[in-house]
Amino acid sequence: MDELKEKYKNKNVLITGGLGFLGSNIAHKLVEYGANVTIIDALLSFYGGNKFNISGIENKVQVIIGDIRDFRLTEKTIEGKDIIFNLAAQVSYIDSINIPLDDLDINCKGHLIVLDACRHRNPDARLIFSSSRMVLGELLYSPVTEDHPTEPLSIYGIHKLTGEKYYQTYHKTYGLKTVVLRITNPYGIRQQMKHSKYSLVGWFLRQAMEDKTIQIFGDGKQLRDYIYVDDIVTAFLKAGISDKAIGQIYNIGLGKSSQFLEMVKTVLKVAGKGKIECVPWPKNYEKIETGSFEMSMEKAKKDLKWFPRIELEEGIKRMCEYYKKFKQFYW
Amino acid sequence: MDELKEKYKNKNVLITGGLGFLGSNIAHKLVEYGANVTIIDALLSFYGGNKFNISGIENKVQVIIGDIRDFRLTEKTIEGKDIIFNLAAQVSYIDSINIPLDDLDINCKGHLIVLDACRHRNPDARLIFSSSRMVLGELLYSPVTEDHPTEPLSIYGIHKLTGEKYYQTYHKTYGLKTVVLRITNPYGIRQQMKHSKYSLVGWFLRQAMEDKTIQIFGDGKQLRDYIYVDDIVTAFLKAGISDKAIGQIYNIGLGKSSQFLEMVKTVLKVAGKGKIECVPWPKNYEKIETGSFEMSMEKAKKDLKWFPRIELEEGIKRMCEYYKKFKQFYW
Repeated sequence: MDELKEKYKNKNVLITGGLGFLGSNIAHKLVEYGANVTIIDALLSFYGGNKFNISGIENKVQVIIGDIRDFRLTEKTIEGKDIIFNLAAQVSYIDSINIPLDDLDINCKGHLIVLDACRHRNPDARLIFSSSRMVLGELLYSPVTEDHPTEPLSIYGIHKLTGEKYYQTYHKTYGLKTVVLRITNPYGIRQQMKHSKYSLVGWFLRQAMEDKTIQIFGDGKQLRDYIYVDDIVTAFLKAGISDKAIGQIYNIGLGKSSQFLEMVKTVLKVAGKGKIECVPWPKNYEKIETGSFEMSMEKAKKDLKWFPRIELEEGIKRMCEYYKKFKQFYW
Repeated sequence: MDELKEKYKNKNVLITGGLGFLGSNIAHKLVEYGANVTIIDALLSFYGGNKFNISGIENKVQVIIGDIRDFRLTEKTIEGKDIIFNLAAQVSYIDSINIPLDDLDINCKGHLIVLDACRHRNPDARLIFSSSRMVLGELLYSPVTEDHPTEPLSIYGIHKLTGEKYYQTYHKTYGLKTVVLRITNPYGIRQQMKHSKYSLVGWFLRQAMEDKTIQIFGDGKQLRDYIYVDDIVTAFLKAGISDKAIGQIYNIGLGKSSQFLEMVKTVLKVAGKGKIECVPWPKNYEKIETGSFEMSMEKAKKDLKWFPRIELEEGIKRMCEYYKKFKQFYW
């Protein structure tokens, strides 16, 4: 941690999507480390951007309400930045089914603009991209390593894969210093709690806290790798300063999968409220869900010296405390 | 051939980009086979669309001057079609470096619109997509089979790969009947002859016919698989009616590579004019060129019973005759 603090002190860091779940948690840590933080966020409705997410550091960061798809704005914003965490995104694979063109526009065009601007105006910046396990599609072996074939089953997965290829190609062809982090199932404080379209941990926690009945699709036996946001933040920060990481892709997860049903039970236990009901899978979900999921974190552990630590129950406890306090800003 | 004629007779066929090089050649063959052909083409400047390309069949096809990125138009146009050959594209990897956003818009958005329109309004149509060897990137083995890793080195290659994934995913997830053809180095009659940004065979032929000096980058020893358009047309037509092809990707090339220099010498020989000069590689090209290139056609031969026949010299002869006659429409 001391090494991170030292390396980030006085660094100029840009976080796109910095009012969202992952971006804002990164911002809090960077402010603690003494970095000069700039946030750009479009605050699109229904997505994760929330001004309360930077509560406590709002006077220590520069916030630009704007869209990375705005080429001129992005060109100006990336200049002089040492490290750019690129988290602006449409984050629901469910929505990608219904609004594939918006998903394309946000998840591809925006990143292409950031990269092309950096190629011309800031070729030395470190660029860290937030990708997803959804690039993989049907799993051929387990645990999944970074070189597993990528045959996505959703538009969301395709566009995340396109994003990965942008970062990889701008590294290989133009020498940009890019890193791709492929995140499993993230959860934690500052995530949106308004709908169920992404991060079911959060949605279920809200339902449990409201003493509602949580619907589970199928038997709930599928394995998922749930990773708490603080561990993800550390992965981003380490990726942002590691020379070894340049041009690489890393799996970022806890490295230990839980049954879906177990996750829900933990949520109920922590909340001390709520009920479970099992129902059949809805039609649209079934073909996209990829069955059980276990991912290897060996590469990130080796290259980044990154070791995820926060177990599911502990993570949900932290979330529950946070949302008890700040419910009115998220409900 | 008789089987193709029988199968295409009275079929409703749509060709996007149908005034371009490959599209118009497909249109000519389909009219011969008695299909009801509709062409949609945006006639974007600098690309391959050319009204003269349908000279002789202009009264036998329906032509819509319009863009597949126009959602409403595309929705109307795909209705009732049995087979859709989807060839609308930005086709220069050189341009993709300078105008990555246009490349994204044309080569991704347009195809996503066609597929999504078919998903909702014409789920039984056969959809054939024209992809490229440029999806591959650095070659790990040779000859290249369809399951070779895809790590493109250009934006053009990334977006063609994204296109492939769209077609594959709309098949796997929504059951659409899609086929991807991954074309090597196409050449032939009806290709544009105005600039050197794609299909160097055509550009060199023009220079030779004008008795100019042809510049070759490097030693010209890299291998390329040049495939004549008539063989490609047959591959498209076979892919459009084969049940086995649904959901598949096929390499489409001659299956026999020639040295680049040999191609240029053949062009000079056929034209009976022109000179060769060797110069070093320009900076931008070098990192994208993938060295020698040999591709296996075994899968297409086996599944589609497709056997490319036209040797390089024969193909260039046919081109030379065509452009001697119709120069004024292409120069």
